Amino acid sequence: MEVRGAPAIGAAAALGVVLGVKNWKAKDFISFKKKLDRASGYICTARPTAVNLFWAVKRMRDYAVRNQNKTIPELKDLLLKEARQIMEEDKIACRRMGDFGAKLIKSNSNILTICNAGALATVDYGTALGVIYRAKELKKKIHVYACETRPLLQGARLTAWELTRNKIPTTLITDNMAATLMQQGRINLVIAGADRIARNGDTANKIGTYNLAVLAHYHKIPFYIAAPVSTFDLKIPSGKYIPIEQRHKYEVTGLFFKSSIAPKGMKVYNPAFDVTPNELITAIITEKGILRPPYGKNIKKNAGR
Amino acid sequence: MEVRGAPAIGAAAALGVVLGVKNWKAKDFISFKKKLDRASGYICTARPTAVNLFWAVKRMRDYAVRNQNKTIPELKDLLLKEARQIMEEDKIACRRMGDFGAKLIKSNSNILTICNAGALATVDYGTALGVIYRAKELKKKIHVYACETRPLLQGARLTAWELTRNKIPTTLITDNMAATLMQQGRINLVIAGADRIARNGDTANKIGTYNLAVLAHYHKIPFYIAAPVSTFDLKIPSGKYIPIEQRHKYEVTGLFFKSSIAPKGMKVYNPAFDVTPNELITAIITEKGILRPPYGKNIKKNAGR
Repeated sequence: MEVRGAPAIGAAAALGVVLGVKNWKAKDFISFKKKLDRASGYICTARPTAVNLFWAVKRMRDYAVRNQNKTIPELKDLLLKEARQIMEEDKIACRRMGDFGAKLIKSNSNILTICNAGALATVDYGTALGVIYRAKELKKKIHVYACETRPLLQGARLTAWELTRNKIPTTLITDNMAATLMQQGRINLVIAGADRIARNGDTANKIGTYNLAVLAHYHKIPFYIAAPVSTFDLKIPSGKYIPIEQRHKYEVTGLFFKSSIAPKGMKVYNPAFDVTPNELITAIITEKGILRPPYGKNIKKNAGR
Repeated sequence: MEVRGAPAIGAAAALGVVLGVKNWKAKDFISFKKKLDRASGYICTARPTAVNLFWAVKRMRDYAVRNQNKTIPELKDLLLKEARQIMEEDKIACRRMGDFGAKLIKSNSNILTICNAGALATVDYGTALGVIYRAKELKKKIHVYACETRPLLQGARLTAWELTRNKIPTTLITDNMAATLMQQGRINLVIAGADRIARNGDTANKIGTYNLAVLAHYHKIPFYIAAPVSTFDLKIPSGKYIPIEQRHKYEVTGLFFKSSIAPKGMKVYNPAFDVTPNELITAIITEKGILRPPYGKNIKKNAGR
């Protein structure tokens, strides 16, 4: 949890692979590969949901295998270069998502977001927040409502901080206030990031995202996901195959509080993510363009690797 | 905020009127009435949303006026008796709501609730939680999911405590987890209390209640309100006339936390209540019976005073 945000997790994983093999004095590729596999396997146990982690580690391993004819020092250099390439690509993806996504935002928009899909979640200025930053650069008048995002409060601690630091007018709300804002006509669109997108468009993201998608649907408000293609998992047909990380109850009952806020021994359900079915998603903003239904076809065309 | 929960606020207000006039050495009813009006007016400034406050104060004042031929000491005694009568009626109302409401709960139900509408919100065992307690007494197998209810955490601090103390299996969740539970088929019904119900059935209750109503509607799950008839405000035609209390931003950014969780100067929206439109309410459980649509007609018939 020192690194969070799917694209940042991917970049950190790639750099983790580099660090994992850095001091390994291998005589040959077989020995090097052994260490590489061990480091990769360990890195992949960090978090189960964000697919960028597995994507980045696989990309690094595949790259090493493709370059197994190189000397070990050359290989280590090449892996560092590949990790930097992943970072560079994420930067470019952020900017492209910003460009595409900003077209969806009219001036005088009130935007609702959840968790943090900004500079603190990516290598550059973010996915969902990147779109907001780009809209601001284009002089669109915008205001953001940031859901605090219990239990870990990434909205209050990260998004509220990022946006106000970048002089974007922002109002903090608790997660259960989004519905009443929509009822009052005070939200024009919802935009969130993603941790994994199945090939039918079903999207896992921070717990509470599905809640906002249902609310947006009921209130006829557009609901957008912004994510680079590294977040798509084309191996799984739908969201039900996305493993959802269950986290410690202490995050709910005590982590941020002066003392425990619940009775001792209280049972807690604490899934870190939920899955929004594709039919509730108006569009998915990627660096390849804005994908709309039918997602099956359009994801295959644009996010195929 | 020392007393919360609409029925408890009503009972406390009645007792507050008694205390307000207790030491007033009035020579005649005109002088007594002056003090009574001042105390009543002051008590009514405590909270704007829960109508039970105004209902109880008005009942006490009307009662005094009807008994103005009595001596001042007699009047003071009568007012204490009337306040106790309000308490007694609330006890009976809780038990009756429990009886009626428990019929709506099948064995093996998973029940979702928000905030606290239990013994800590009424004179007896509660409205929404009273129904749950009664179902338990009737040996129905039930399990409750308690929304923590940000910002003031009445669900985590009060409901979780009350229910576990009464040996009702309870799981605590953050407010943004209700949607994913419903999606997984793990909620059979939602039950909440109320702070004010308009004559068309629109219901103000703790912030987040409307969110749950929309989610229940989308997932085709019954959504019930439990409230005594003292919570109905027949003077207002719909929910848009219910004043919603706005509370201090500190409740969101710092109250329960070790330190501030948001940037300094952060703008916060903090409505204490929201309004659920009548069309999202499956039924309203009162001490007079279970009211169903059309609410306009059925509220007039049963909650008319």
